Amino acid sequence: MTSAPLEKTDIAGLMLTIGQAAKAAATTLALAPTAAKNKALTAAAAAIRTRGDEILAANSRDMDAARARGLTGALLDRLLLTPDRIEGIAQGLDGIVTLPDPVGALDSEWTRPNGLKIARVRVPLGVIGIIYESRPNVTADAGALCLKSGNAAILRGGSESAESSRAIHACLVEGLTAAGLPEAAIQLIPTQDRDAVGLLLGMSQYVDIIVPRGGKGLIERVQKDSRVPVMAHLDGICHTYLDAAADPEKALAITLNAKMRRTGVCGATETLLVDRAIAATILPPILDALVAKGCELRGDRETQALDPRVTAATEADWSTEYLDAILSIRQVDGVAGAVAHIARYGSHHTDAIITEDERAAEQFLTEVDSAIVALNASTQFADGGEFGFGAEIGISTGKLHARGPVGLEQLTSYKYQLRGTGQTRP
Amino acid sequence: MTSAPLEKTDIAGLMLTIGQAAKAAATTLALAPTAAKNKALTAAAAAIRTRGDEILAANSRDMDAARARGLTGALLDRLLLTPDRIEGIAQGLDGIVTLPDPVGALDSEWTRPNGLKIARVRVPLGVIGIIYESRPNVTADAGALCLKSGNAAILRGGSESAESSRAIHACLVEGLTAAGLPEAAIQLIPTQDRDAVGLLLGMSQYVDIIVPRGGKGLIERVQKDSRVPVMAHLDGICHTYLDAAADPEKALAITLNAKMRRTGVCGATETLLVDRAIAATILPPILDALVAKGCELRGDRETQALDPRVTAATEADWSTEYLDAILSIRQVDGVAGAVAHIARYGSHHTDAIITEDERAAEQFLTEVDSAIVALNASTQFADGGEFGFGAEIGISTGKLHARGPVGLEQLTSYKYQLRGTGQTRP
Repeated sequence: MTSAPLEKTDIAGLMLTIGQAAKAAATTLALAPTAAKNKALTAAAAAIRTRGDEILAANSRDMDAARARGLTGALLDRLLLTPDRIEGIAQGLDGIVTLPDPVGALDSEWTRPNGLKIARVRVPLGVIGIIYESRPNVTADAGALCLKSGNAAILRGGSESAESSRAIHACLVEGLTAAGLPEAAIQLIPTQDRDAVGLLLGMSQYVDIIVPRGGKGLIERVQKDSRVPVMAHLDGICHTYLDAAADPEKALAITLNAKMRRTGVCGATETLLVDRAIAATILPPILDALVAKGCELRGDRETQALDPRVTAATEADWSTEYLDAILSIRQVDGVAGAVAHIARYGSHHTDAIITEDERAAEQFLTEVDSAIVALNASTQFADGGEFGFGAEIGISTGKLHARGPVGLEQLTSYKYQLRGTGQTRP
Repeated sequence: MTSAPLEKTDIAGLMLTIGQAAKAAATTLALAPTAAKNKALTAAAAAIRTRGDEILAANSRDMDAARARGLTGALLDRLLLTPDRIEGIAQGLDGIVTLPDPVGALDSEWTRPNGLKIARVRVPLGVIGIIYESRPNVTADAGALCLKSGNAAILRGGSESAESSRAIHACLVEGLTAAGLPEAAIQLIPTQDRDAVGLLLGMSQYVDIIVPRGGKGLIERVQKDSRVPVMAHLDGICHTYLDAAADPEKALAITLNAKMRRTGVCGATETLLVDRAIAATILPPILDALVAKGCELRGDRETQALDPRVTAATEADWSTEYLDAILSIRQVDGVAGAVAHIARYGSHHTDAIITEDERAAEQFLTEVDSAIVALNASTQFADGGEFGFGAEIGISTGKLHARGPVGLEQLTSYKYQLRGTGQTRP
């Protein structure tokens, strides 16, 4: 149903059908036993392995079309599937099988003076819409996380990965069928009609939350247009602050890792803040090491005066997420100066302080208003896997519902179960 | 600033000023010590008591205007303040002083294999907009809950209670000043300009969440128009289901309480579901007692056949929140029938089963998708105070962020604090 070519005029009707089917499937999924969900995931992983050649063939059709459209190296690499990457997708599904089922988990439990027992237990959110771009593995990851958390998923991948996503989606459906779960638990919206995204963002009667994954253009559009609540981060303008009491060795190792381990991830540090009092002593070896790794440096006047390789940072640099081997550097007056800079230019994602001064550390960890604040650790730990969540669907910088890495627990809500013995309210 | 008469054209500028001031105040409040917040609340309670005569005078101006506009008995009663009610408002503030501060509370804490310590601690949401109708006490309750949870509040009361709200608000500001906290921590929007609500609902850059409190018309408008996330419930269509294994005495006591204790609250039962197998035996004494208390009965054919006092329920009755001494009654086939009826007609608020059969109970508590599900207890326990939260700002039937009673904890978010010793990510 969702893979046949469509007339333009069909799309509103199709989206309605998809929404209704997802809502119906969500009711079944919410009550599905853990064993059934795990069986579906295991069977889907097996199908991914068995049908690896089909997936590769589909992917090479996507790659041919992408090359014909003139896509560049990095985009092509995101799109590319290899036998290793396909095995990685299957292992990702196996990994989600091993995670504890969040549905039915007891948050807390207490008894009131009248004897009424109150339990807060976790329940699925319902229907989750996921809008993503070129990486075809998101089809499996996102679909599997929704399934394990008892939610129905409506997936909308990028048009460039349409064939690959469809082939992977077929494996997920094979898993659902093997486990006796509704096929509509994980639906894939056809990519040929661009109106589908707009329709999905308006379907607040069928969709409980939208999770966009991709570039800033996509996130911005989704946040602006959606009538359904959105869980996402727009920017990852992360800071590492070198306090006056920073250990120089930790400062060096962490700054290098935070900036250069991977420059394209949202937890990469984009701005290095340094206490003015120690800049001249702590910075030189760090700047040497960054330059040796190929990092471009842009700094304020004082930092430029320290090192001629530092070019002038403009005002725009402080609010730019480079996602590249570029670092902006600014000198500030102590923790208060760092907190003020981050409040003004940050994106409430992840910010770190390097210090041996416990008071400075606690001030920073308390006053910086970000999803993740870190002491003497790399900002690149901003990741559900590194938190021990097993897997994540993304990172949220909003304060409502979920903040930081969005794992299985964050894809659930809760209900209160009251157990009485005849209590009435006075 | 917020109480002077205004030109129509000023309102957009005023709302911008209010939004900016709230956001600035929120930054201060987020870090305010518990002692300062409690001092402000205690001083506000003292001011309410000291300035009781002023508040009564303001209220009698509201009452005069309301009578002149032809307001009816129930509405006038909601608006009315008496010395007792004013003392109740002051005691409400004192009560919030005694509640634990949710800000900084540790949700959970764990250590990763690499030695990184992760703590999840609670932080305020930011700025909360509260839109309410005639009850002037909401000014104090809502303002105080926001303050205690470290949030700035923007209050918009009903025009009929404008003078009373202003007098109460002055006491809150007196408390804030006494504690050295920003006056803008609790702001009151002037009621004379109706555009203010629309502007508030569009201020997503300054307001983090909107909590509407009032009738269905207000909630509907807010949910429809708001660009800011809304925490609320539109309907409280609550059910009590008498299972085949119900204890007749519990069934009688709970049904009477659930329907008749107070008919105008959102947790009042509106529909009684009865297992067809026991209807003829369990219903007669319950219907007698309900009629004796002045309750009107509307039922399906089978229930009408049992008792001539039961008039015919129409399809619309099953989805009507009477908020009155009216009960709709329907016979169903077991727990599955009750669950199906509630899924179709309920509002995900509060639903109860009366049974001595543990399996039936667990099925109901698991399968009914409502914020609160209860076994052998009255639906009227749907209340933050009854849950032990101390106070609530409302009840949410949405699944995102908070579900059920919204107390201090639900007015907070969280952040992750990572404490390392130099960890970098491999």
